[in-house]
Amino acid sequence: MAKEPKKKGKKKKQHNVPTAGSSPGLLYIDESALPSIITVHSYGAGYYEARDVDSILGLKPQFLNSEYTYWIDVKGLKSATLFEALMTEFNIHKLVLEDITRTSERPKYEEYEGYDFAVSRMLYVEEEFGLCNEQVSYILMQNVLITFQEGQVNGMDPVRARLKAGKGNIRTAGSSYLMYAIMDVVIDKYFIILNAWGDELDRIDDELIEKPDRSLVYIIQGIKRNLISMRRVAWAERDKLNDILRSDSHFITAQTKMFTKDAYDHSIQTIEMVESLKEICISSMDMYLSLMSNRTNHVMKVLTIISSIFIPLTFIAGIYGMNFAKQDPVTGKNLPANMPELYNEHGYLYTMAVMAIIAIIQLFYFWRKGWFK
Amino acid sequence: MAKEPKKKGKKKKQHNVPTAGSSPGLLYIDESALPSIITVHSYGAGYYEARDVDSILGLKPQFLNSEYTYWIDVKGLKSATLFEALMTEFNIHKLVLEDITRTSERPKYEEYEGYDFAVSRMLYVEEEFGLCNEQVSYILMQNVLITFQEGQVNGMDPVRARLKAGKGNIRTAGSSYLMYAIMDVVIDKYFIILNAWGDELDRIDDELIEKPDRSLVYIIQGIKRNLISMRRVAWAERDKLNDILRSDSHFITAQTKMFTKDAYDHSIQTIEMVESLKEICISSMDMYLSLMSNRTNHVMKVLTIISSIFIPLTFIAGIYGMNFAKQDPVTGKNLPANMPELYNEHGYLYTMAVMAIIAIIQLFYFWRKGWFK
Amino acid sequence: MAKEPKKKGKKKKQHNVPTAGSSPGLLYIDESALPSIITVHSYGAGYYEARDVDSILGLKPQFLNSEYTYWIDVKGLKSATLFEALMTEFNIHKLVLEDITRTSERPKYEEYEGYDFAVSRMLYVEEEFGLCNEQVSYILMQNVLITFQEGQVNGMDPVRARLKAGKGNIRTAGSSYLMYAIMDVVIDKYFIILNAWGDELDRIDDELIEKPDRSLVYIIQGIKRNLISMRRVAWAERDKLNDILRSDSHFITAQTKMFTKDAYDHSIQTIEMVESLKEICISSMDMYLSLMSNRTNHVMKVLTIISSIFIPLTFIAGIYGMNFAKQDPVTGKNLPANMPELYNEHGYLYTMAVMAIIAIIQLFYFWRKGWFK
Amino acid sequence: MAKEPKKKGKKKKQHNVPTAGSSPGLLYIDESALPSIITVHSYGAGYYEARDVDSILGLKPQFLNSEYTYWIDVKGLKSATLFEALMTEFNIHKLVLEDITRTSERPKYEEYEGYDFAVSRMLYVEEEFGLCNEQVSYILMQNVLITFQEGQVNGMDPVRARLKAGKGNIRTAGSSYLMYAIMDVVIDKYFIILNAWGDELDRIDDELIEKPDRSLVYIIQGIKRNLISMRRVAWAERDKLNDILRSDSHFITAQTKMFTKDAYDHSIQTIEMVESLKEICISSMDMYLSLMSNRTNHVMKVLTIISSIFIPLTFIAGIYGMNFAKQDPVTGKNLPANMPELYNEHGYLYTMAVMAIIAIIQLFYFWRKGWFK
Amino acid sequence: MAKEPKKKGKKKKQHNVPTAGSSPGLLYIDESALPSIITVHSYGAGYYEARDVDSILGLKPQFLNSEYTYWIDVKGLKSATLFEALMTEFNIHKLVLEDITRTSERPKYEEYEGYDFAVSRMLYVEEEFGLCNEQVSYILMQNVLITFQEGQVNGMDPVRARLKAGKGNIRTAGSSYLMYAIMDVVIDKYFIILNAWGDELDRIDDELIEKPDRSLVYIIQGIKRNLISMRRVAWAERDKLNDILRSDSHFITAQTKMFTKDAYDHSIQTIEMVESLKEICISSMDMYLSLMSNRTNHVMKVLTIISSIFIPLTFIAGIYGMNFAKQDPVTGKNLPANMPELYNEHGYLYTMAVMAIIAIIQLFYFWRKGWFK
Repeated sequence: MAKEPKKKGKKKKQHNVPTAGSSPGLLYIDESALPSIITVHSYGAGYYEARDVDSILGLKPQFLNSEYTYWIDVKGLKSATLFEALMTEFNIHKLVLEDITRTSERPKYEEYEGYDFAVSRMLYVEEEFGLCNEQVSYILMQNVLITFQEGQVNGMDPVRARLKAGKGNIRTAGSSYLMYAIMDVVIDKYFIILNAWGDELDRIDDELIEKPDRSLVYIIQGIKRNLISMRRVAWAERDKLNDILRSDSHFITAQTKMFTKDAYDHSIQTIEMVESLKEICISSMDMYLSLMSNRTNHVMKVLTIISSIFIPLTFIAGIYGMNFAKQDPVTGKNLPANMPELYNEHGYLYTMAVMAIIAIIQLFYFWRKGWFK
Repeated sequence: MAKEPKKKGKKKKQHNVPTAGSSPGLLYIDESALPSIITVHSYGAGYYEARDVDSILGLKPQFLNSEYTYWIDVKGLKSATLFEALMTEFNIHKLVLEDITRTSERPKYEEYEGYDFAVSRMLYVEEEFGLCNEQVSYILMQNVLITFQEGQVNGMDPVRARLKAGKGNIRTAGSSYLMYAIMDVVIDKYFIILNAWGDELDRIDDELIEKPDRSLVYIIQGIKRNLISMRRVAWAERDKLNDILRSDSHFITAQTKMFTKDAYDHSIQTIEMVESLKEICISSMDMYLSLMSNRTNHVMKVLTIISSIFIPLTFIAGIYGMNFAKQDPVTGKNLPANMPELYNEHGYLYTMAVMAIIAIIQLFYFWRKGWFK
Repeated sequence: MAKEPKKKGKKKKQHNVPTAGSSPGLLYIDESALPSIITVHSYGAGYYEARDVDSILGLKPQFLNSEYTYWIDVKGLKSATLFEALMTEFNIHKLVLEDITRTSERPKYEEYEGYDFAVSRMLYVEEEFGLCNEQVSYILMQNVLITFQEGQVNGMDPVRARLKAGKGNIRTAGSSYLMYAIMDVVIDKYFIILNAWGDELDRIDDELIEKPDRSLVYIIQGIKRNLISMRRVAWAERDKLNDILRSDSHFITAQTKMFTKDAYDHSIQTIEMVESLKEICISSMDMYLSLMSNRTNHVMKVLTIISSIFIPLTFIAGIYGMNFAKQDPVTGKNLPANMPELYNEHGYLYTMAVMAIIAIIQLFYFWRKGWFK
Repeated sequence: MAKEPKKKGKKKKQHNVPTAGSSPGLLYIDESALPSIITVHSYGAGYYEARDVDSILGLKPQFLNSEYTYWIDVKGLKSATLFEALMTEFNIHKLVLEDITRTSERPKYEEYEGYDFAVSRMLYVEEEFGLCNEQVSYILMQNVLITFQEGQVNGMDPVRARLKAGKGNIRTAGSSYLMYAIMDVVIDKYFIILNAWGDELDRIDDELIEKPDRSLVYIIQGIKRNLISMRRVAWAERDKLNDILRSDSHFITAQTKMFTKDAYDHSIQTIEMVESLKEICISSMDMYLSLMSNRTNHVMKVLTIISSIFIPLTFIAGIYGMNFAKQDPVTGKNLPANMPELYNEHGYLYTMAVMAIIAIIQLFYFWRKGWFK
Repeated sequence: MAKEPKKKGKKKKQHNVPTAGSSPGLLYIDESALPSIITVHSYGAGYYEARDVDSILGLKPQFLNSEYTYWIDVKGLKSATLFEALMTEFNIHKLVLEDITRTSERPKYEEYEGYDFAVSRMLYVEEEFGLCNEQVSYILMQNVLITFQEGQVNGMDPVRARLKAGKGNIRTAGSSYLMYAIMDVVIDKYFIILNAWGDELDRIDDELIEKPDRSLVYIIQGIKRNLISMRRVAWAERDKLNDILRSDSHFITAQTKMFTKDAYDHSIQTIEMVESLKEICISSMDMYLSLMSNRTNHVMKVLTIISSIFIPLTFIAGIYGMNFAKQDPVTGKNLPANMPELYNEHGYLYTMAVMAIIAIIQLFYFWRKGWFK
C-alpha cells in the first residue's frame, strides 16, 4: 500500500477576510502582521543609496524636489505610524490603505488623485505542493514608488540586487519602470512554479504507465487545486496589466508601457499554461481511472480463470469423495447401484482424464477470448 | 457502514413563485408573511434617534424638509396599509411593491421616477448545510432609505449597531451610503459562508485520503448544490452593483460609488470563489471515485490471491479424498489401477510438497505483478 | 430488480420539419392540424364581448375605426380560408403565415410593414415527464391582436378569464399588453414545470442516499433530456423578449415595455434555473455512480471476507479428508509416513484450533483494514 | 456477445488537403475529380430552357444583355478548359477557382469585383452512419449563377425540378434567389439527417433501458463523431448566411435577403440541434455506464449470495469429511478424542440443522441489505 | 499484457524560460543555440541569387536602393555580431531581438518604427507522437525580409525551392508576400500533423472495438496532450494573422492581405480540427472505459455462472462425503439416524438427479437474465 503523503497543498496562509459588519473604511491593522522594516532607496543615473528609516514623516518635500527616484520599500505591515504618515502627508485614501493592510485583495490597478495604486500577488511554494501567496502593494507617484510586502518571502531581492548593481536601464527609467520590474519578477515566478508542476505531471504520467499508484492521485489533485487557486490570481494579474496598458496616468511612462506589454504577454501565457496543465491533470486522472479499471479487469481475469477451472474439477473430486455405500456396514446388504465408478478398475484414470479434458476446454475458451494477453 | 446524514442542504424556504395566470401587476401579499415591524431611524452628524411606528402615513413631508437622513427599516411584509401608504404617498409603482412582496426576485437595481429600487438576497446557513436566503429590498430617495426584510434573520444588525454607535462616516454620508453599507454586509456574509465551505472541503479532502467514506460524498454534493444556488445569486449581485456603478442616478453620491466599487470587487471575488469551490467539489468527487476504484481493486486482489492459492490446493486434496477403491468391498476383487498414490509410503509427503510448490509459484507470480504493494 | 418505467420523456409531438426541396414560401397547411375555432374578443374600459366567428373576412375595416381592442383568438390551424383572408385583407406576408402553419418555429419577434409578428412556445408536461410544446403565434396591430394556437392545450385560459373578469388593467392597456399578458403566462408555465422538476430531483436525491436504484437513473435522465430541450426554447424566449424591449415598433406601448422587462427578467431566471437543474442532474448521476461503486465495493468486501476465511479452512479440512492409507487394505502393509496426524489422539482438536487461529488472524486483518465499517 | 458492427461513421471522403509547400495560388485540378457536365438553364417568367454545353466560352455577352436569368450548373470538376474560360472570360480570381477545385473549403461568402463567391457543404449519409459531405460552390453575378458540384450526389435535384415546374416565384426572383433556394435545400438536408439521428438516439435510449448492449455504444459514438464533424460545418454555414445578410452586394436582392433570414434562422436551429444531440449522446453514454455498473453490481450480488451461503456450509461438510480416526487401524488403539460428533446418534441431524441456521441467518442479512431487490 | 510504449509525446524541447529576476531588456543569447548560417536571397522578376554571408554589416544601404527584394535567411541564433548589426544598422529594438533569441514567444505580429515584427511557431513531430516546435521570427521591411530559425528542422525548404524555381508570383510579389508564403507553409504543416493524428484516432477506434487494449490509452492520451499544446499555438497563430489583416502597415501589400485572408481561414480550420480531435480523444477514452466496464462485467458473469452452479453442487457432494458413522467402529453400536441416504440403494442416483436439477434451474435463471449473450 502506498503511504499517505503529508497533507499536500493545504497549508494556505489564512488571509484577513473582512468580518461581516465591520465598518468599511476604518483603517484595519492585522495584529499578527510582521513589524515594518522601511528602506528608502534613492537612485539616479550613476547614483544609488539605500538606508533604513523608522518613519517616513517629513520625507515628502525632499522627494518632490529631487532629480532622483525614490523607492520606499516596506516589509511588514504592523506600523500604525507609517500608515498615519501616508494618510496625512501623502494624502493616501483610507480605502487604499485598508486594501494594503487587509492582505486579501485581488491584483488590481487604480488611479487616484495624485498617485496610482496597484496590487500584485507574489506566489511561492512551501514544502512540496503548498501554494502560498503574499500581497505586494504599490503606490506610484511622480518619482516615488512605495511598495508594501507582508514580509514572509524575499521575492523582490533580484530587483534590489539589480538596482544596486545598476545593470540595464533600471536606475534611469523612473519609478514606473521600477514598478514594472517588480511586477515582472512576480509573473516570472509564476512561470517557474508552473514549469515545476508541468515537469512533475510529466513524471507522474510516466509513473502512471509503469504503476498506477494511489499516491500519484494525491499529487495530481494537489497540483490541480493549486492551479485552480493560481488561475484566479493569474486572471486578475492579466486584468491589472491590461488596465495599466490602457491607463492614461501620467505616472506611467511610454517606455514602461512598452515593457508592460511584454509582461502582459507573459501573463496571458501564464493563464494558457494554467489551463493546459489543468487539462493535463484531468487527462492524467482519466488515465489513472482507465488503468485502474484495466487492472481490476486483469485481477478479475486471474480469479475467474483459476476459479472456473478448479471449481468444477473440485466438484467432480467431491462426487467421488461421497460415501454412498456399496455394502451396508451394519446389515451387510449389497447396494450395487451406488457409485459403481468407484469399483471400476480404471475409474480413477477415467476421472482424471475427464478432469484434464474439462480444464483444457476451459483454457482454450479463455485463450480464444484473449484473456491471457 | 456510514450512517446516513440527516437531509443536508435540502430545506430551502419555498419562495413565492408566481402562479401561472395570476394577473401581473395586482399587489400581492403573502398570507404566510410575518407581521411588519417598522422602525424609523433618523440621524445626522451627532444625532441619532430610532422609534417604532405603526404607519408611515404622513411622514413624507417631514422627511423631505429635513436636514437629517431617514431610514425606514421594515421587517416582515404583511402590512397592507404600509404598502398602500407607499403607493399613495410615496408614489411607488405597483410593480415595484409587487417585487417587494413576492420575495423571489433576483438582485437588481432599477431607477424610477423619484426613487431607485434595489434588491439584495441575504444568504444564511441553517443547520449544517441548508442554504437559505432572504430578500432585502431597498427604496432609495434623496434623504430617505426604505428597506424591507422578510424578517427571519438579523443580518442587518451590524449596520444598525454602527449607526447607533456613530462610528465612521455612516451618519454623515447620506442614504445611498447606508444602502451601500447594508449591501456590503450582505456580500461579506457570502464570504463567511464560502470560507466555511472551503474549510469543510479541505477537511473532507484530508478525510478522503485517510478513509473514503460514503458520508463525505453526501457533504460534497450538499455543498455543490448550495454553490450552484449561490452562483445564481452572486452573479445577480455583481450585475446589480455594476448597474449602480454605471448608473447616473442623483440619489447615489460619488463617495458611495467609490465604496460600491469595493463591494463590486468583493462580488467578483465571491463568484470566483464559488467557481473555484465548485471545481474543488468536482475534484474531490473524482478523488473519491478513484480511491473507491483503488479500494475495490485492493479488495479484489485479496480475494484473488487467497482464492487462487487455495482453490487448486483444495482440488488436489479433493482428489485424494476420492474413494476409488483398491479392493471391492463386496467381491474382494483387487483394483490396483485405482489411486496407487494413496498406498505409496510417502504419498502424503509428496502431495504436501506439491501443494507447497504450487502455492510458492503463485505467491511469486503475484509478488512479481506487484499485488502485495 | 427495479421495474422499468414506462418510457418517460419520449413522447414528443413530431413537429412539421420542412421537407428538403419543398419550395420555400408556398403556404403550407398541415393535414393533421385541428380545425380552426375563431373567437373574436372585443373589449375596452367596462366593455367586453366574445363571439365565435366562421371567417374574419370583412372585419378589418370595423376594427380599424373602433375605440375598442380586438383579440382574434384562433385555435387549430386547418382553415385555409382564414389564412387567405389574412393574406388578402390583412396583408400578412406569405412567409409569416408559413411560420404560423409550420409549427416548428423558434420563439422570435419580427417587425413587418403594418404589423409585428411574434412566436412563443407554450410548454406542457404530458404524463410523468413527457415534455411537449405548442406554438403560439401573434400578429400584433394597432388595436388588434391575432393569436394562433395549435389547440391541444388550454394554456391561455387564464388570460381569457382575466379579460372576462376585467381585473387589473388588461382591458384598458391595449393589444400589446394583451400580447405581453399571454407571453407572461407562457413563461410562468416554464417556472411551474421547472419547480416540479426541482422538487422531483430533491426527492430523488433523498431516495438515492437511501437506496440507489436504477429507476432513479431513468427519471434523472428523462428530466435532463427535457431540460436540454427546454433550454433551447428558453434562450429563444429570452432573445425574443429582448428584441421586443429594444424594438421601436409603435404597436408596443411604453407601459407594455415596462411589463415586458419583468417578463424578460423571468426568462433569464428560467435559463438560470434550467442550467442549475442540469448541473443538479449531473451531480445526482455522479452521486449515483459513486454510491453504486460504493455498493459494489461493499458487496466485494462481504464476498472477500467470507471466501478468504473459509476457503483456506476448507482446504485444511480437505487435507484431512484425503485417504492416504496407514495400512494397505490389500497387502496389509503398514504405511506409517502417511498422515500420522489422523492417528494422533488430539489431532482433531489441534486441527480445529489451527483453523480458529487462522480465522481470527484474518478477521483481525480485515478489521484493521476497516472493512467492517 | 454483441457482434461488432461494420465500421460505422468512418468512411469519410478524403478531401484535398493542401500539401505543405505547394505554391498558393497555382490553379489545382484534382486528378480523381469526375468529368464536368455543364448544363445551362435559362429561365424567366413563363420561360425555361435547359441545355447541356461543352464549353461556356463566348456565352458571357449573351448572358449580359439578356432579360432572362441563367444558371450554369456544373457537375464534376475535372474540366481545365472550363476553369480557363472562367478565368479569362468571366474574370474570376485564381484564388476563387482554387477554392472551387480544392474541395475542402469551409462554407463562406466573399464579395469580389464583379461577382460574389460562396461555398456550401452538402451533407449526406452513406450506409448507416457514414457522414459524407460534398462542396457546392457558387459564383453569383447580375443575372447569372454558376454552381459547382463535385458530382457524387444529387442533392440539388429538387431545385432543378422546381425550376422546371415553375412553381412559386423561383423563375422570376433572379439569380440570388436561386442561390438562396439551393442553400436552403442544403440546410434542410441537415435537418433531415439530424432528425434521423435524434430518432436513432431515442430508440437507443429505449434499448439501453431494456438491455445495455455494447453495440449501442458503437452507434452512440458514431453519431457523436458525426455530430462533431457536422457542428464545424453548421457553424460555418451560419457565419456564411450571416455574411450574406449583412452584405451590401448589389447582386443580392432585398427579397432574397428576407428569405435568407429564414435560412439563417434554420442554420441556428441546426446548431442548437447538434448541441442538444451531442448532450443527449453524452447523457446516453452516462446512462450506459451507470447501467453497466448496476449490472456488475447485480452480478456481484448473485455471486456473493451464493458463495457466502455455500462456502461456509461446504467447510462444515469438509470438517466432518475429515478422517481423524477413532481407532487406529494398525494398532487398534482407541482415540476417543477424535471427532466424537461422528459417533453421536443424531450428529448428522444436528449438523444439518446448524447448516440450515447459518444459511437462514445469511439470507436474512442479505434480505435486510436489500440485495434481493 | 500490452507492453508499455516508449515514452510518447514527452520529449519537448525545453524552451528558454526567463529566469525570475533577470533584467528585462538585456540582450540574451542562448549558449546552446546553433551557430548562425546567414543566406541572402536577392530576387526579382526573372532574377534570383542566393549567397551565404558572414555578416550583414553594411548591407542595408545596398538593400534600400535596390529594385530587388532581399531575404536574409538566418538559421541558428548564436551570432552576437549579427544581432549587434541588427541593432545598430537596422535599428531593431532590443526587446524585439530579445524576442528572437528567447525562443519561447507566442506567435504575434507587432508594428515598429521602420519595420514589422512577427513570430510563427513551426510544429514538427519527432518519433511517434513527440510534438516539438521551433520559433520562426520575421522582420519585415520595405523590400527586405529577415527570418530567424532555430535551425533544427528544414520546414522552410519548400519556400526556398519555389523561390529558386520562380514558379507563381513569389518573385514579383515583394517581401510581405514572402513572409505570407512562409507563414502559410507553417500552417499547412499543422494540417498535415492534425490529419495524421485524425487517421491515428480513426485506427484506434477500430482497434478499440476489436480489442480495448491499454496501450491504446497511452496513444490517445499522448495525442490529447499534443492537441492541448497545439491549441495554444494555433490560437496565437490565428490572432497573429488577424492582426496582420487588420494592420495598416505599409509593408503589407493589398495582395498579401488577400492571400493572408486565406491563411487566416486555414488557421481557423486548424483550431476547429484541434477542438474536434480533442473531443474525439475524449470520446475514445469514454468508449475505452465503457468497453472495459463491459469486459469486466463479462468476466464477472463467467465467474458467477461457474461458481454459482458448482459451489452448491460441491456442497452437496461434501455432505455425502461426511463420515457420520452408521456403526461405531469401536463399540460396534448401531447409529441408524446418521446419513441413511448413504445406505439407500439408489441414493447415489437420486443425489446426481438433484444436482442436475439444481444446475438446470440455475442455467435457466442465467439464461433468462440474458447473461449468455
